[in-house]
Amino acid sequence: MALAVSPLAPERFPDIPVIPGVRFAAGCTGMRYRNRDDLMLAELAPGTTVAGVFTRSATASAPVLWCRASAKRGRGRAMVVNAGNANTFTGSRGAADVKTTAAAAAKLLGCAAADIFVSSTGIIGQRLPVETVVAALPGLQAQLDGKAWEAAARAITTTDTYPKGSTAQAKIGGVTVTIGGFAKGSGMIAPDMATMLAYVFTDAALPVRVLQQLLREGADRSFNSITVDSDTSTSDTLLLAATGKAGNKKITRAGDPALKDFRAKLDTVLLDLALQIVRDGEGAQKLITVRVNGAASSQAARKIGLSVANSPLVKTAVAAADANWGRIVAAVGKAGEKANRDRMKLGIGGILIARNGEPVTGYDEAPVTQHMKGRDVVIEIDVGVGKGRATVWGCDLTHGYIEINGSYRS
Amino acid sequence: MALAVSPLAPERFPDIPVIPGVRFAAGCTGMRYRNRDDLMLAELAPGTTVAGVFTRSATASAPVLWCRASAKRGRGRAMVVNAGNANTFTGSRGAADVKTTAAAAAKLLGCAAADIFVSSTGIIGQRLPVETVVAALPGLQAQLDGKAWEAAARAITTTDTYPKGSTAQAKIGGVTVTIGGFAKGSGMIAPDMATMLAYVFTDAALPVRVLQQLLREGADRSFNSITVDSDTSTSDTLLLAATGKAGNKKITRAGDPALKDFRAKLDTVLLDLALQIVRDGEGAQKLITVRVNGAASSQAARKIGLSVANSPLVKTAVAAADANWGRIVAAVGKAGEKANRDRMKLGIGGILIARNGEPVTGYDEAPVTQHMKGRDVVIEIDVGVGKGRATVWGCDLTHGYIEINGSYRS
Repeated sequence: MALAVSPLAPERFPDIPVIPGVRFAAGCTGMRYRNRDDLMLAELAPGTTVAGVFTRSATASAPVLWCRASAKRGRGRAMVVNAGNANTFTGSRGAADVKTTAAAAAKLLGCAAADIFVSSTGIIGQRLPVETVVAALPGLQAQLDGKAWEAAARAITTTDTYPKGSTAQAKIGGVTVTIGGFAKGSGMIAPDMATMLAYVFTDAALPVRVLQQLLREGADRSFNSITVDSDTSTSDTLLLAATGKAGNKKITRAGDPALKDFRAKLDTVLLDLALQIVRDGEGAQKLITVRVNGAASSQAARKIGLSVANSPLVKTAVAAADANWGRIVAAVGKAGEKANRDRMKLGIGGILIARNGEPVTGYDEAPVTQHMKGRDVVIEIDVGVGKGRATVWGCDLTHGYIEINGSYRS
Repeated sequence: MALAVSPLAPERFPDIPVIPGVRFAAGCTGMRYRNRDDLMLAELAPGTTVAGVFTRSATASAPVLWCRASAKRGRGRAMVVNAGNANTFTGSRGAADVKTTAAAAAKLLGCAAADIFVSSTGIIGQRLPVETVVAALPGLQAQLDGKAWEAAARAITTTDTYPKGSTAQAKIGGVTVTIGGFAKGSGMIAPDMATMLAYVFTDAALPVRVLQQLLREGADRSFNSITVDSDTSTSDTLLLAATGKAGNKKITRAGDPALKDFRAKLDTVLLDLALQIVRDGEGAQKLITVRVNGAASSQAARKIGLSVANSPLVKTAVAAADANWGRIVAAVGKAGEKANRDRMKLGIGGILIARNGEPVTGYDEAPVTQHMKGRDVVIEIDVGVGKGRATVWGCDLTHGYIEINGSYRS
């Protein structure tokens, strides 16, 4: 895919420190792409805890079902991720191919197959060339390197126009721990080529129950609050691995005050990765932030925000810098959540447009249009019902989206 | 709007017979458009029963709230519909403007204001020039004509590229009754310019409770089963008026066997109008029919069908005649309804593609691609769970949609 880099891309891939207990390698199987890596191996030290959040799709892929079972056990020794073939809708063969991959990696690392997390992203409905994956694993093992973050991030991309990484450091009871991770995705889904995958690592020592709660809550405020095209993937996977090498004090519950900083920094990394996915949204020229206040609950606020961020009419209006705010009102109305039409408040770019269910007196469209011509468009809505609030992020809908998704597969 | 007529348009507006008790007039107020009619008056004979189905939007327009109240009373003497201004998000003034319009029409016709149904479609958030509407009403009254179906249908359009009408005759206990109606809409919503409105008339004599049940059930299988862009309007309105002039035998319940033919013909008219809206979907080049079988219920089947018909990735694949059926699998998966991935069956254009959760042996893509190059694309899905079935209709997503909605308002 020779797509131009998104105009919303960050300047460069971040410098992510080595995280003790994690090493990466990337290689090329050629199963779909030429002249680029398409297979990633992440090795995790013995004792690493792993938490996961997965797609709720009823047609979830074989690798997702496998990972869900492994995440329940909560331990992991490696992750194997390939790009180009999603191993989805591949029947019993698909499940067998995941098992074969896991068994091969387990044999190399001397662990149980259940300790291997497997993800696949790419085209749906074609059998995974599993022999190619298995044959490539020993070579990858030989190259494992704690510094190979960017190579790993690149190897899992599909229609992405740039690799996505993020890092932060946090203190747990006086001990510094590092968080680092990478993600891929350019639509919530483009099932022949792209799905959302994210892998986050830390040297913190955290039991899996705590890790799982932190990840679930962080995912709700990041990956579950973004949208490119409203299409949810069959393969969405977010994994968080904690090697414990930092040697912080023992933590037994997610509510421990010692986790306050770690939780905040983890959320920062998750949100950074999630926003990098939106910023690489297929055809995206603008990032849209929708802040919803006054909803019945935070869940209701998020649903309203996603209804706005997913509305093709709002997205095309943003693309055109058209201050056509009636489309936002309609998108709020269709969300299926409570909104008090006659107490609603609406603004764009910090400029109040409507209040108490009608436009403000002397409303001037010019500064709103000016704001909408920029790369970052902020929509603020108060639905006048309660105290629920949420922020969601999306991107505009442009000819680029049609170009990318409406062309024959090559 | 100088849009080219949709390639999916019917050859011509149908010949709809005069329905005793119903007369129409159309006129030009110039509130938004030049050189075309934008105001429609439909006069109904005394004793006419009226049923209505309206948008579920939480930001429903002032006219919708007014009509909902009048439909509860179940009687009507006229409908007044303007195009170009939706009278939505206009605060207490909006409600007052509806009342002023209804009162003026009621005075002309010598009835109660509550007997007047008022609809508005067009831009959101601008005050309706109600004086212009009121001033035009006497001229319209003078022109009322039972044959003016097409003029009435044209007057209520916004971004529509053709007027939409339909008719049928049915027998009720040996008496022939006529059904005729028209609709407008080119997206489920394009709130600055287009919303879905439909008006259906019959000379059958039917009590309002029966009428309401027939309409609600028919709407579920027609208007509630179509989508252009997943955006639900603040103004969606469907009214059915029965003048009783046919003099059929007294009917007291919707389950009366004498209504079998009428119900079938009414459904035909509702579906014909609904499909004409999809065929005029903004930028549409192809009609997509999605047939879902094997769902947990008919509601679940409809939700799955709409998830497929609304998926931007499915819509762009259809636009490109790309047999990328993995996108359909993903759209089924995200619908939030039960689907048995390993028992799913999928076909396009009558060609079986996948069964038992994997592609059929020897699947040949060529005839599927050939089918998808046509104007009518049929997708069939069995989700392998139960006996629920539904059919929904949508259209493809093309550059034309972006052109129409992503340009500055003129």
